[in-house]
Amino acid sequence: MAITVVGSVAFDSVETPSGKYERKLAGAGTYFSLAASYFTDVRVIGVVGEDFGPQHEAVFAARGIDTRGIERAEGKSFFWRGEYGENLNEAKTLQTDLNVFATFEPKIPEAYLDSEFLFLANIDPVLQRRVREGMPKARLVGGDTMNYWINDHRANLLKMLEVVDILLINDTETKLLAGNKNPVKAANDVLKLGPKSLVVKHGEYGATAFFGGKSFAGTDAHHPFRAPALPLAEVVDPTGAGDSFAGGFFGYIASQPELTPEVFKRAMFYGGVMGSFAVERFGTERLQELTREEIEERFGMFRALTHLD
Amino acid sequence: MAITVVGSVAFDSVETPSGKYERKLAGAGTYFSLAASYFTDVRVIGVVGEDFGPQHEAVFAARGIDTRGIERAEGKSFFWRGEYGENLNEAKTLQTDLNVFATFEPKIPEAYLDSEFLFLANIDPVLQRRVREGMPKARLVGGDTMNYWINDHRANLLKMLEVVDILLINDTETKLLAGNKNPVKAANDVLKLGPKSLVVKHGEYGATAFFGGKSFAGTDAHHPFRAPALPLAEVVDPTGAGDSFAGGFFGYIASQPELTPEVFKRAMFYGGVMGSFAVERFGTERLQELTREEIEERFGMFRALTHLD
Repeated sequence: MAITVVGSVAFDSVETPSGKYERKLAGAGTYFSLAASYFTDVRVIGVVGEDFGPQHEAVFAARGIDTRGIERAEGKSFFWRGEYGENLNEAKTLQTDLNVFATFEPKIPEAYLDSEFLFLANIDPVLQRRVREGMPKARLVGGDTMNYWINDHRANLLKMLEVVDILLINDTETKLLAGNKNPVKAANDVLKLGPKSLVVKHGEYGATAFFGGKSFAGTDAHHPFRAPALPLAEVVDPTGAGDSFAGGFFGYIASQPELTPEVFKRAMFYGGVMGSFAVERFGTERLQELTREEIEERFGMFRALTHLD
Repeated sequence: MAITVVGSVAFDSVETPSGKYERKLAGAGTYFSLAASYFTDVRVIGVVGEDFGPQHEAVFAARGIDTRGIERAEGKSFFWRGEYGENLNEAKTLQTDLNVFATFEPKIPEAYLDSEFLFLANIDPVLQRRVREGMPKARLVGGDTMNYWINDHRANLLKMLEVVDILLINDTETKLLAGNKNPVKAANDVLKLGPKSLVVKHGEYGATAFFGGKSFAGTDAHHPFRAPALPLAEVVDPTGAGDSFAGGFFGYIASQPELTPEVFKRAMFYGGVMGSFAVERFGTERLQELTREEIEERFGMFRALTHLD
C-alpha cells in the first residue's frame, strides 16, 4: 500500500575519509523514498528550487516515486555541507542554507490522500503535525526528529509526538528527549509522550525497538527487539543511513497486509539492510540501483549474523 | 570438561550512580570462575594476601571452584578503587595497589594439568604465555588483555597472542591493538596476530565474533556473529561484566563435547547472559546465587530479543 513521506529534498556537499562530492541530490525525503521504493509505492512531499533539474527528477522517476507533491519554488534548494572524521557516527555541519525550505508550506496533492502510511521525516514539528492532520486516512504514522527541535521547539515537538505511532530517532536524541541517560528508562519515558513504539538507532550497532504499555499490533512492552547493523569494512559515506533505515523499515511494513510482531521485526532487519547499502557508496548512488535479489541476499546475511540456527 | 583460569583475585572498592561498597571480593579470576562455574568444573590460579579469609574462600567453595592454585602470600591482596559516572561503559581508576600481585609467579597445581580449556585473564602477557606453556594439554586457549599491555608491553603481548585461540577484548582495545579505527579492518588485523577468533565486546550493545581466514571449528571468516546485550533499566555495577561474559562464553564451550559454529554462537549468548547478571547487583553478589533455570530463562530473553521467529 502507498506510503507518503514529507521531508527535505536537498543537495549535499560531503567529505568523508573515503573522498568527497559536491552538490549531489540528497535530503531525508530522498533517501527515505529511494529506500522505501523497493518495497511499496512511494509519494513525496517537499520543496525544491530552480537547481533541481530533469536529471534529479529522473532519479525519482526511475524508481517509480510519485513527485507530484514536490513543489518547485523560486530560488535554490536546501543545501547542506558536512564532513565526517574518523568517527563516522557524527557529522560536522559546515554550512546549512535553508533556501526555499525556509518558507516551506507542505501541500498535499489530492492523489496522495488515500495513503494508508505516512512518514514525517525530520522537519519542523509544526509542519509534521499539519501534514498528519491533512491526511486523516493514514492509519500508521512514523516520524523522525533531531536535537534542534528537541532543544528549541519542545512544545511543538510534544504536539507532534501525540500523533506519531512509531518514532525513529538515535541514542543521543532519545536520551535528550527523555532527559535520562539510561537507555531503557529513556525509551520508556519517550513512549509516555505518545508513540506506541520507539525505534532507537545505534549507528554501527543496529537499532532497538521498544513498545509502550498498551499492546500495539500484538507487540509486548516487555519484549524489545534488536536488529543488527552489518559490520562493514568500509563506510564510504554515512549520510542518509538513518533515513534509509526508516525507508526500508516503513516501506516493508507498508508492503505487508497487516502489522504483526513478526512483520515489525522483519521491518527492523530491512531497515538495517537499506542503511547498510546506503553507506557503501557516496550519496544516494547505491540506493538508486539495487535489486530485490541483492536486498534479500543481504537480509540473509543479517539473519546469519544474529541467529543461533 | 575442566577449565583453568589464571587471573586476579582481588578486592574492589567501587562507587556507581546506584551506590558504593568497600573491599568486596573481586578480580577477573573471580568473576570469570563464578560465571563459568554454572557450566563446568573450574580451577583458578592466582595469588591473594592475608586479607583473604575463610569467608572469601567460601564464595569459591560454594560454587565448587578448585582454589588449590590460589597462592597465599604475605601482605595484602590486589586492590582496586574505581568509580563510574553516568557513562557506565567507562570506569575511572582512583587507586590500584598491586600488593602481592606485584611479584606474582603463577604456580600450576599438578591436579590442574589435565585441563583441556585454559583462560588467560588480563595479567602480564609474559605470565599468560608461561601458564599456557605450562599446560600443554589445554586444547583451547582464551585470553584477554588491556590498553596498558597493548601500549607499553607490545612485544610481550604479541608473543602471547601467538598462543591464544580466542581473544576477548573490547572495541577500544581492538582498535588500539590494530592501529585501525574501522571495526572490521581492525578485527582482521588482530586475527593476523595469531588468534583464530576475536570476540569484540561492545558494552551495552553486545559483542561480535570475527573469525580468521583458516577455518576454526567449522567457522567462516566471511560470517561474523553478533550477540546482544540485554537492555537493562538499571546497571547497578558494571565491574566484572567483561570477565563474566568471558566466563559464561568459555564455560559453556568447555561444557560441550565439541566446538562447532552452533556451540560458538550459543556461547556468545551465554556470555551476554552472564554479563547481564553480573551488572544487576554490586560486585559478584548476583553471580554467587544464580540457578541454571534463571540462566536458561535469560538465554530465552536474548533469543527473543534478536530472533525473527
